[in-house]
Amino acid sequence: MPQSPQFITFEGLDGSGKSTHLRRASDWLEERSIAHVVTHEPGGTPLGDALRAVFLDARWGAIDGTVELLLVFASRRQHLLEVIDPALAAGKHVLCDRFTDSTRAYQGYGRGVPLALIEQVDALATGGRRPDHTMLFDLPARSARARGHSPARRGGRSADRLDAEGLGFYTRVRQGVAAQAEREPERFRVVRSGGRPETTWRQVRTALEGWLVE
Amino acid sequence: MPQSPQFITFEGLDGSGKSTHLRRASDWLEERSIAHVVTHEPGGTPLGDALRAVFLDARWGAIDGTVELLLVFASRRQHLLEVIDPALAAGKHVLCDRFTDSTRAYQGYGRGVPLALIEQVDALATGGRRPDHTMLFDLPARSARARGHSPARRGGRSADRLDAEGLGFYTRVRQGVAAQAEREPERFRVVRSGGRPETTWRQVRTALEGWLVE
Repeated sequence: MPQSPQFITFEGLDGSGKSTHLRRASDWLEERSIAHVVTHEPGGTPLGDALRAVFLDARWGAIDGTVELLLVFASRRQHLLEVIDPALAAGKHVLCDRFTDSTRAYQGYGRGVPLALIEQVDALATGGRRPDHTMLFDLPARSARARGHSPARRGGRSADRLDAEGLGFYTRVRQGVAAQAEREPERFRVVRSGGRPETTWRQVRTALEGWLVE
Repeated sequence: MPQSPQFITFEGLDGSGKSTHLRRASDWLEERSIAHVVTHEPGGTPLGDALRAVFLDARWGAIDGTVELLLVFASRRQHLLEVIDPALAAGKHVLCDRFTDSTRAYQGYGRGVPLALIEQVDALATGGRRPDHTMLFDLPARSARARGHSPARRGGRSADRLDAEGLGFYTRVRQGVAAQAEREPERFRVVRSGGRPETTWRQVRTALEGWLVE
C-alpha cells in the first residue's frame, strides 16, 4: 500500500547520534527507492542560514529569550514554506533534523522561556504545525555533551554562544524533550542511544518500517 | 516643571522630511540642554542592524509577510530592551525614526499582512507598546517617492527590495498611516510636509514645545 508522504523529525542533544542515524535512514530509504528529502534546523533555507549566522554570532552576548524565539520561528516558517511543504506536496517523505521540539527543549526547558509563549508564537508562525512522527535519541546529558562538543567534533571552529552553556542547561533540555515525548506518545518513538550504533540503528529501522513501509 | 521622559516617534514615507526634521529637533533640544537620545528603526542595535542586512538582501526575493513580521518585531524588542527603555529609565527623552506605525503601514496596509496579526505579534514581542507621541510627516506618495528614491538620495547604493515597490504600494502605505493617526488623535501630530522646510519646522517645534517644554 503506498503511503501518504510523512513529515518525520529527528530530535536529541548534539552527540546523541541523531544526525548520523538520519543519514543512515536516508541511505536506507534510497536503497528502497522511497522518495524523500533530507533537511535540518536551524536554517534549512538560504534565509534561515543567514538568520542562523546572526543568531550564533557571539558578539551579541546573551540574547533575550523572546527575541531568540521570534528569530527561530521566522526561520521555521520560511523552512516550511520553501522546503518541507513543497516536498510533501510532491509526494516525498521529509526527514528533518530538529524542529519545534528543539525550541521547546532549548529555549523553553533550557533557558526558561515560558512554554505558553512558545506555543503562542508557534501558532502565529506555523499554525501549531506538528510532525507526523518524531524519533527521539535519548542519552544522558553528560555523555552527549562530551561527544557533541569536543574540539574534534566542532572541526576546529571557535566556540559559539550555545557551546558556552553548562551541563545543567543540557540536563534541563534532555528532561524537557523527554517530557514532551510523554505528552505525545503517539507521535514520539524514543530510541536509547549511547550503546553500539547497530543496536540504535535497529530501533530506528523498525520505526521507519512501521511508519513508511508497512 | 520638569517633564517625565517621553518616547517620541517620527513617521512618514522616505522623502517626507521626517529624518531631516528629527535631526533638527535633536539640535533644538541640544541647544536647550534637554537630555535625549536619537535612534531609529529598522535596526537601532547591532543585532537589529545585522537582521536588517539580512532582511534587505535582494537574494531572497519576496519574503513571506509573516516571516518579515517576526523579524521586524525581533529587532524591535531588542531595540526597546537595549536602547529605548534604558534611555527613558535614565531620564532622557527618546526621539525614534520609525516604530510600530511603520510596520502597520508598510507590512499591513502596503503588503496586505492582516492588521490583527500585526497586533498579535506586537503583543507578544513588545506587550503592545505605544510611543507617548508620534509626529507624522504627510506628503503625497508621488512626491515622497520622487524625493526619497532618486539615485542621488540613495547615495549610489544599488536598489534593495523595498525600492522595487511601485507607486500603488506607497499610496496604500500613506493612507494606512493616515488611518492610524485618525484612530489615535491624542498620540499623533500630523505635519504637512512638502512645502518650505521652515514652514514644516515651525509645526514640529510647536509640537515639541507642547510635549517637552511647557
